Amino acid sequence: MINSNNNTCPVPIQRYPDVILAHGGGGRMTQQLIESVFLAAFGGSVPGERHDGAVFDMAAGKLAFTTDSYVIHPLFFPGGDIGELAVNGTVNDLAMCGAKPLYLSAGFIIEEGFPMESLRRVALSMKSAAEAAGVRIVTGDTKVVNRGKGDGIFINTSGIGKIIARQPILPASVRAGDAILLSGDIGRHGIAIMAVREGLEFESVIESDCAPLNGIVSSLIESGIEIHCLRDLTRGGLAGALVEIAEAAGFYFEIREKDIPVREDVRGACEILGFDPLYVANEGRFAAFVPERDADLALEIMRRHPLGEDAQIIGVVGKKTNPGSVAMRSRIGATRVVDMISGEQLPRIC
Amino acid sequence: MINSNNNTCPVPIQRYPDVILAHGGGGRMTQQLIESVFLAAFGGSVPGERHDGAVFDMAAGKLAFTTDSYVIHPLFFPGGDIGELAVNGTVNDLAMCGAKPLYLSAGFIIEEGFPMESLRRVALSMKSAAEAAGVRIVTGDTKVVNRGKGDGIFINTSGIGKIIARQPILPASVRAGDAILLSGDIGRHGIAIMAVREGLEFESVIESDCAPLNGIVSSLIESGIEIHCLRDLTRGGLAGALVEIAEAAGFYFEIREKDIPVREDVRGACEILGFDPLYVANEGRFAAFVPERDADLALEIMRRHPLGEDAQIIGVVGKKTNPGSVAMRSRIGATRVVDMISGEQLPRIC
Repeated sequence: MINSNNNTCPVPIQRYPDVILAHGGGGRMTQQLIESVFLAAFGGSVPGERHDGAVFDMAAGKLAFTTDSYVIHPLFFPGGDIGELAVNGTVNDLAMCGAKPLYLSAGFIIEEGFPMESLRRVALSMKSAAEAAGVRIVTGDTKVVNRGKGDGIFINTSGIGKIIARQPILPASVRAGDAILLSGDIGRHGIAIMAVREGLEFESVIESDCAPLNGIVSSLIESGIEIHCLRDLTRGGLAGALVEIAEAAGFYFEIREKDIPVREDVRGACEILGFDPLYVANEGRFAAFVPERDADLALEIMRRHPLGEDAQIIGVVGKKTNPGSVAMRSRIGATRVVDMISGEQLPRIC
Repeated sequence: MINSNNNTCPVPIQRYPDVILAHGGGGRMTQQLIESVFLAAFGGSVPGERHDGAVFDMAAGKLAFTTDSYVIHPLFFPGGDIGELAVNGTVNDLAMCGAKPLYLSAGFIIEEGFPMESLRRVALSMKSAAEAAGVRIVTGDTKVVNRGKGDGIFINTSGIGKIIARQPILPASVRAGDAILLSGDIGRHGIAIMAVREGLEFESVIESDCAPLNGIVSSLIESGIEIHCLRDLTRGGLAGALVEIAEAAGFYFEIREKDIPVREDVRGACEILGFDPLYVANEGRFAAFVPERDADLALEIMRRHPLGEDAQIIGVVGKKTNPGSVAMRSRIGATRVVDMISGEQLPRIC
C-alpha cells in the first residue's frame, strides 16, 4: 500500500460507493474523504482536519464544555437522523448549562462498507443542524473500523459554549417552592425510533421532536428570570431527569400527571408497546426550575417560542429530603413515587 | 425494566463481571457504572456526568480545541493501552497547536460483554495519563452497543487548551530556510501494535513510544524560539506528516535519511514485516519547524528533555513549489520523492 514513488492521486473518491478501511488510514484517501464529504458539507469549516486542532479567540468568562457519542439505531428515522441528533444533542447539553453554544467537534467512527451516500447525507444533516443552531463545526476526526466491528456510523460531538446565565444553572441551585416547567409534549423521539425498529405503523407518522433548544433557553435567560436548573429529557425521559435532579439537589418534587402533555398517538403507541411516556426519551424537550414568582413569566416566554407552544407548569419543589425523591399525583388523584428506570427501556435511542 | 414503584437499588455493580446494555440506558445502572468505574478512577472529577456539561473560568485569549476517537486494536499493548493513548493523543494535538492542554472530555462506546475489569483498567490508565500530562478530565459520556456492533471499547477524547505560543503554529507559518527537527527515533508505536497483532516475538520487546508531548513543547515555546509549525507523527508516520505540511504550506522539503533515528530492533521488524519506518505511526514523536538561526538552540532544548534525547535536525525547507513536496536523500546519496501513503499500512493503529 505504500505509494512513495509517485505523486499521482489514487482512484477518485467518486469510484468508491462504500467507505473502505483505507479511508481511515490517515493517508491520501483519508484526505480525499475529508475533502469530498466533510469539507464539502461543512463548507471548509473543518480546519482542524488539516492541522491538529482549531484555534479561536475567546473573551474572558465562564465556558461550558460537554461531550456525547451518538450510537442511535436506526441512523435515519422520522423527524431526523444521527447527524442532526449529534449536533442538536450537544447544542442542548450546552444550553442546559446556561451557555450559548459556539463551537463543536465531530468525531466519526465508520464501519467498513458504510455507503458513501449515507455518509454524505449525515454530513449534510450536521451542516443544516449547525446552521440552524448557530454553531460552527471547527474540528474533526475520522476513523474506520473493520466490517462487523462497528454499526454503520457512530458520531461523537463535543461542544464549547459561553455561559450567558447570570447565576449557576445546576441541581444545587434548586430551591424549595421552585416551579417545575416542561417545554412541551413528551415521548415522541423514543416512539419514533421504536416504530421504525419494530416496523409499527400508526395512523399518523410519529416524528422525533429532535430540535436545538439554545434559542428558547436564551429567551428565558435574556428575560432576566432567575433560572435555577435546566435539563433536557433524553435517555431516561422526564422521570429520569427529575429523579436525577431531585437526588442531586436533595429535594422532594411533586408533579401532576394531568399537566404533562402527551400526544394521543404517542399515548396509544406507548400502550401498545408497554411503555410509560414518563420514561421515553425526547430530543427537543426540557424541564426548567424557576422561583415561583417567575413561573408565569417563564411560561409565557416559553409558549411564545415555536419549541415551547405547549409548555406547562407541571409541579413544584417541596421540602428538603435525603435522598431527594419525586412523586406524581395521577389523574384520579392518587400519588405514586416516580423512580429512575433501572436499566433501559429502549437501547441505543441516542 | 421500569422500576417506578420502589426506591431500592438494583443489583450492585460488583455483581456484573461484564458491561451489559442496561449500563448504557441512562438509568440507575448507568449511574452506578459511572460512579463505580469513572468517578472512582477520575476522583470525582467528572462533574459533567451529573449535569449536562462542565463549567469553568477562562481568561481572555486564544483557545485550541481538538477531537480524536481511538479505535486501536488490541486495546492493551506493550508500552500502553487505549486509555493512555486517548489522553496522550489529544494532549499532543493541543500541544501541536502551541497550546497548554487544560481540559479533556471522555466519551466511551462500550460493546455489550466488555469485561468490567478491563473497563476499570482503561479508566485508571486515563487517570494516570491525565495526571502525568497535567490535564483534567471534566466531562464524559457512556454508551453501550449490542454485542457484535462494536469492538470492546472505543474512546473519544476532545480537548481544550490555552494558546501559549506567541505566533501561530501551523503549516502556513513555515518559511524557506526553516530547519526541520525530529524529536527522536521513529516507528515504535506501529511496530509494537503489529507485533502483538501478528504474534511476533523479537529479541527485545518493542514498546510503544506513547507519551505526552506538552512538556517538551512548552520548553521550546518558553525558550522564546520562533516556532513555525509542529506536528505529531501518528497515522501516516513521519512521511505523512511532512507531506501534509509541505502541501499545505506549498514548499519543497529535503530530509536526510541518515539523520532519522530508527532503533535497530524496529528497523529489523520493519524489514520482516515489509514496512518502511517513515510511514509507521508514532504516539510520542513530533516534527518541529524553526528558523535556521534557532535550530541549534531548539535541538539543545529538545535533547535536554527525556522525550527528546535523540532529537535530530533532519532537513530543511527549500523553495516554494506548487504543490509542495518532500524529497529524501538516502544513505547512499540518491534522492527519492517521499509521498503520502495512499490507503493504510496498519489499520486501527490509534
